[in-house]
Amino acid sequence: MLKEIGGGITAPKGFMAAGVKAGIKKSGKEDIALIYSKTPASAAALFTTNAMAAAPVIVSRQAVKHGTARAIVINSGCANACTGPQGLADARTMAELTATVLGVAPHEVLVASTGIIGVHLPMDKIAAGIKQAAAELSETGQEKALQAIMTTDTFPKSCAYEFMLSGVPVRIGGMAKGAGMIHPNMATMLAFVTTDAAVAAPVLQKALIEAVNLSFNMISVDGDTSTNDMVGVLANGQAGAPVIDNADSEEYRIFAAALKAVCINLAKQIVRDGEGATKFLEITVTGAETFSQAKQAAMAVAKSPLVKTAFFGEDPNWGRILCAVGYSGVPVQSEKTALAIGGIPIVRSGMATSFDEQALRKVMSARDIAITIDLGLGPAAATVWTCDFSYEYVKINGEYHT
Amino acid sequence: MLKEIGGGITAPKGFMAAGVKAGIKKSGKEDIALIYSKTPASAAALFTTNAMAAAPVIVSRQAVKHGTARAIVINSGCANACTGPQGLADARTMAELTATVLGVAPHEVLVASTGIIGVHLPMDKIAAGIKQAAAELSETGQEKALQAIMTTDTFPKSCAYEFMLSGVPVRIGGMAKGAGMIHPNMATMLAFVTTDAAVAAPVLQKALIEAVNLSFNMISVDGDTSTNDMVGVLANGQAGAPVIDNADSEEYRIFAAALKAVCINLAKQIVRDGEGATKFLEITVTGAETFSQAKQAAMAVAKSPLVKTAFFGEDPNWGRILCAVGYSGVPVQSEKTALAIGGIPIVRSGMATSFDEQALRKVMSARDIAITIDLGLGPAAATVWTCDFSYEYVKINGEYHT
Repeated sequence: MLKEIGGGITAPKGFMAAGVKAGIKKSGKEDIALIYSKTPASAAALFTTNAMAAAPVIVSRQAVKHGTARAIVINSGCANACTGPQGLADARTMAELTATVLGVAPHEVLVASTGIIGVHLPMDKIAAGIKQAAAELSETGQEKALQAIMTTDTFPKSCAYEFMLSGVPVRIGGMAKGAGMIHPNMATMLAFVTTDAAVAAPVLQKALIEAVNLSFNMISVDGDTSTNDMVGVLANGQAGAPVIDNADSEEYRIFAAALKAVCINLAKQIVRDGEGATKFLEITVTGAETFSQAKQAAMAVAKSPLVKTAFFGEDPNWGRILCAVGYSGVPVQSEKTALAIGGIPIVRSGMATSFDEQALRKVMSARDIAITIDLGLGPAAATVWTCDFSYEYVKINGEYHT
Repeated sequence: MLKEIGGGITAPKGFMAAGVKAGIKKSGKEDIALIYSKTPASAAALFTTNAMAAAPVIVSRQAVKHGTARAIVINSGCANACTGPQGLADARTMAELTATVLGVAPHEVLVASTGIIGVHLPMDKIAAGIKQAAAELSETGQEKALQAIMTTDTFPKSCAYEFMLSGVPVRIGGMAKGAGMIHPNMATMLAFVTTDAAVAAPVLQKALIEAVNLSFNMISVDGDTSTNDMVGVLANGQAGAPVIDNADSEEYRIFAAALKAVCINLAKQIVRDGEGATKFLEITVTGAETFSQAKQAAMAVAKSPLVKTAFFGEDPNWGRILCAVGYSGVPVQSEKTALAIGGIPIVRSGMATSFDEQALRKVMSARDIAITIDLGLGPAAATVWTCDFSYEYVKINGEYHT
């Protein structure tokens, strides 16, 4: 059983955090975050699949191969993407500076950046900020760390849970930032998870892949994938529970469920904060032949600008939903397809039912709306989360001038 | 050499058209169009790949297998999609009614519909409208036929060319409607081409596939593919030029180029009329290993809501363009990638150049903007066309209430 608790990434034992104002952001707000484990932690991470991967992604991808880490340093205000060899050197320097001040090895530091692209990091400010962040590390530093990773996010995103593992209370916490594409250039979805469970690195990586596949990979704000996306997890074992090194064990199952809960919690917060979002849409496809087909159909609906603008307008435009399912590439059959919005059956056997229009209007006026599409073809299901498409989205993304 | 002429679909010899007000559209405007060839014509057509294909698509797909046709009947105001067995019977009846009044076989009539989905055709109005359209068929009927296929289109779309084939002047004309997704439910992209060239049906189908692959398949307004999309072509041979029955001949090459010109002309008109569009964007990817990779990268840019809102805001946000290329799935290499907007080099070797900002601002303020991305990997190129994403798009698609 998972119990939700406070404290975010510093809820698990042995983790400290800090967030400082290094002067990278024009706004003058916090822009360097540091997460530190007092003892060596197993590390796992997943990175953007974008072929234009940013320098910090390249550096962290190499570092995490060692399987252990002590710290994660993150800056906002500059993505260090499309910055060539100089950018790569800067990302390495960021890790080295952090390693030196913390007294750990450079490969024990993961690096992440978010913000403007095509611009070099102000390394003097980065260096001073890292020193200050290390000096300010504390068990209560997560609030400022949360501020330091935000860009266009309108609220900080964190969560933490406590659960029993082999009779020992164990904690897991996480923080994340936005997925709405970011002023001025692109989104970056960053998420960092800490836990005082003891988990061998390969098993941690497996659990992370499973969790991300059902959380961050199941959300869509506008379909764009950033150059800087990264999800990292550190497990330092400070809770004292036995090491999980077997992915077939009951302990693994319990830990993986907790990690999944953290990731889903954070992923939903990201969608709720989608740029200009006025609606939170949960789209479930059932009756698919495979999970991947269910996801493919649900994602086609979630990404359709027509569906998203219709929900913004509170219009239960079922034709656009079926149309998106139809072009998703999944071999659906019109006459087997059913659709419900907010539990109200709208379409059966591919045709409109005579639904209660007033009840449906009430459903459509809510902030949270559940859409269920039954393909009638098999046993598999998938749920994705997205938001609507508003004037505000166009404003945020169209009115900024570089 | 192609010479642009007037007359659209009735420019070629032996074709007549009509458009009548049958009362299907609430606006009371023209809503049934009829295209008629005085003599049997070779027929070819391509249809939506949407698995929820509408009833008229199913009927026309069967009809065109015969290889010859005499007429195309189109209604707007009702898409006859998601209408079950009754919808299929109605589409067949539409073909039969048209065949009867024209004295041809039902399988010689192609049927197309566009408009609201999930609603049955008003068959009494359809029947009366078809009779009236047949009575009003004329060599000058294309203007009204153009009106009758429009839905949210803000201007009628047609073109025609004359060219020499085996020493004989030959004509080809076309008309099309919208691709912005349509009030209240979905887009339908419809295009119909007539020619007085003589072309064997299999060769005509081949030429149509080639032309569509470089025109209608290279445009994106909002990425949604309709249930009703259809492109049809009739070739009646009335110009008197020898039959083209060999796709390796010089005559084929000339005819195929003319058909491609008609399709590209119409496709560009559709993009210009994209819902809420304020910009016409031509995106060319060069230096790809294959055409399909070039197209994939160009389409990722064309479909990115972030890129489209940036151009609406006249912001030369090159980061968003490179980001879209990066997630397109094409194995690009950042350090080999170059980008130019309006001929001004912005990115070289994956990094920003020191470009003339004032010159770029001028380029961005124009209605038509050319974007060129060089992947630096191979010899292949592709060009796609799209429009920007404006407040007006959200308004058109969000404010309608079903």
